[in-house]
Amino acid sequence: MNDSSTHAHHHCTMSKFLKLAHKFNSFYLNGLQKKECRAFIVDGIQVGLVQATVTIELSRYPNVFIVNPNSVTLNPAFRDYDERSANIESVLKEMKEKKLFITLKGWRDECYEVRTMFADQPLLKMDRSATCLFGICNYGVDINGYVNHPQKGLCIWLQQRSLTKQTWPGKWDNMVAGGLSVGNSVIHTAHKEGEEEASLTADLMKNLQSAGTVSFFYESERGLFPDTEFVFDLELPPDFVPRNQDNEVEKFELVTASETVNRILSPDFKTTSCPVIIDFLIRHGIINPENEPRFPELVELLHVPLQSLYKKCDEMLTENGLSKAQ
Amino acid sequence: MNDSSTHAHHHCTMSKFLKLAHKFNSFYLNGLQKKECRAFIVDGIQVGLVQATVTIELSRYPNVFIVNPNSVTLNPAFRDYDERSANIESVLKEMKEKKLFITLKGWRDECYEVRTMFADQPLLKMDRSATCLFGICNYGVDINGYVNHPQKGLCIWLQQRSLTKQTWPGKWDNMVAGGLSVGNSVIHTAHKEGEEEASLTADLMKNLQSAGTVSFFYESERGLFPDTEFVFDLELPPDFVPRNQDNEVEKFELVTASETVNRILSPDFKTTSCPVIIDFLIRHGIINPENEPRFPELVELLHVPLQSLYKKCDEMLTENGLSKAQ
Repeated sequence: MNDSSTHAHHHCTMSKFLKLAHKFNSFYLNGLQKKECRAFIVDGIQVGLVQATVTIELSRYPNVFIVNPNSVTLNPAFRDYDERSANIESVLKEMKEKKLFITLKGWRDECYEVRTMFADQPLLKMDRSATCLFGICNYGVDINGYVNHPQKGLCIWLQQRSLTKQTWPGKWDNMVAGGLSVGNSVIHTAHKEGEEEASLTADLMKNLQSAGTVSFFYESERGLFPDTEFVFDLELPPDFVPRNQDNEVEKFELVTASETVNRILSPDFKTTSCPVIIDFLIRHGIINPENEPRFPELVELLHVPLQSLYKKCDEMLTENGLSKAQ
Repeated sequence: MNDSSTHAHHHCTMSKFLKLAHKFNSFYLNGLQKKECRAFIVDGIQVGLVQATVTIELSRYPNVFIVNPNSVTLNPAFRDYDERSANIESVLKEMKEKKLFITLKGWRDECYEVRTMFADQPLLKMDRSATCLFGICNYGVDINGYVNHPQKGLCIWLQQRSLTKQTWPGKWDNMVAGGLSVGNSVIHTAHKEGEEEASLTADLMKNLQSAGTVSFFYESERGLFPDTEFVFDLELPPDFVPRNQDNEVEKFELVTASETVNRILSPDFKTTSCPVIIDFLIRHGIINPENEPRFPELVELLHVPLQSLYKKCDEMLTENGLSKAQ
């Protein structure tokens, strides 16, 4: 009998949604399996992954990073959160000056916490433009603003991103989305972004409903993006129109559910915002087991196991007899 | 520096829901990592996992099963679906007579399809009482019947299982749930079970809304249960009362959201029905990032990657240089 290990998988063709799920999980389904990245270790714990191109640059700072065949370890002499954060920041600012990585052009002066799992104590903070160089898990908040329209049925508010934004300029996006930066809780971020991005008043926000999370692992030319989004639904009155206050939005548009499908399948939609929309369309019955033959696979690719990813890699290092913190 | 690879994880205590998620993922989080099971291979493809206690018995049928250090392979001489199904059935019926495995006491004369992923062509069928001996992925359908009660707020219909059921007798369970047996589609199973278990009329079922899937991997003394449930929500009028028609239900009870939380945390609830309820409570904002500090982890444990599980194991066998089909 010949080797036909994958032939059953070829019997079913990939749907458009599944292709999209493979696109926003480009690292989870490809790079991660190749095991070409080094574990990024802080205080004996894996918190990220470093690509070879980044490792080369980090190895020029031996007082800050210890590079080994399977890991890049932050110097354990840095004893606390502030010391670790300051030392990494000075390296990153030097790299930014040297124009080594395109992502650092978008330096934000806004930091993300660095830890293995969401509920862990943060070990350091890092500018949000730099976390993709270390494969640090990012967290964000998304609000699906929707209308049960008397004529058109379920409609969703989408935004077109400002043409001057550093990432994904001019692309279509979810109505409201924002990263969870240092010092801000999930619910505070939802309210802050809702007000800044779409002028959602406290009165409208009373209907805000937590609806879960999506998680996926995307890779682009900028770096690695293991991302978890806290998802909220907000039913809006048919006459409400979002207005932007922070100049980060080109325009808003209310589109039907079927037009939303067209938009996310087009190249004009921000790839990493598609999981939140697909999750919304699944939870509201628009994408369902009758129209999506690979429905269970699609749902799993909206919830890839990022919280256990680095814990597992950490165990693998141990199994291989490699020391994690040197 | 000493090895402190897991100390950050100890900083946060497990919530009650997370403990429950570890319970219904007992195999995913424990047994699976130990790699003590053999891959079950049919037609060159992994479709399951076999525990050592089961392997011993299967090795007594060398014309049907080829046992190797890392795999149990169904004899490739069986060329098609019917031949494979018939040969496995005759072995299982003999084992049932010999009273070798408690799960076979509950022989159902109702078969599940056997394949790696949901969308794959089935390779054979197997009585549903036996699939846990081979770690075959099971699929089912669940309906969350709920009421937006004018006084009590969100309420959920729960059923107490019949005291004479072969599995989980007398335990509390979701309003309607049923396995996806050979020849039945997801939506047909939802309608059939809705009518049989709770007398849901076609008129009431017009509100049925597909809401996603949950996936988890449970192990009990009966065997291995990699399970994916197709989840539906059904809003019911406050005056509707479900009536059972198939004698599989002891009674129904309409409980508030907070009482539902108490029920699923009690030992009187069927462990493997908790994921559907937790998913409902998350989608409806009852469990949220403000009251569940480990929210992203909980959501991920409701959607563990079963569709890619055996594909990956299959690749591992290849990497280890072991032949899959002999």
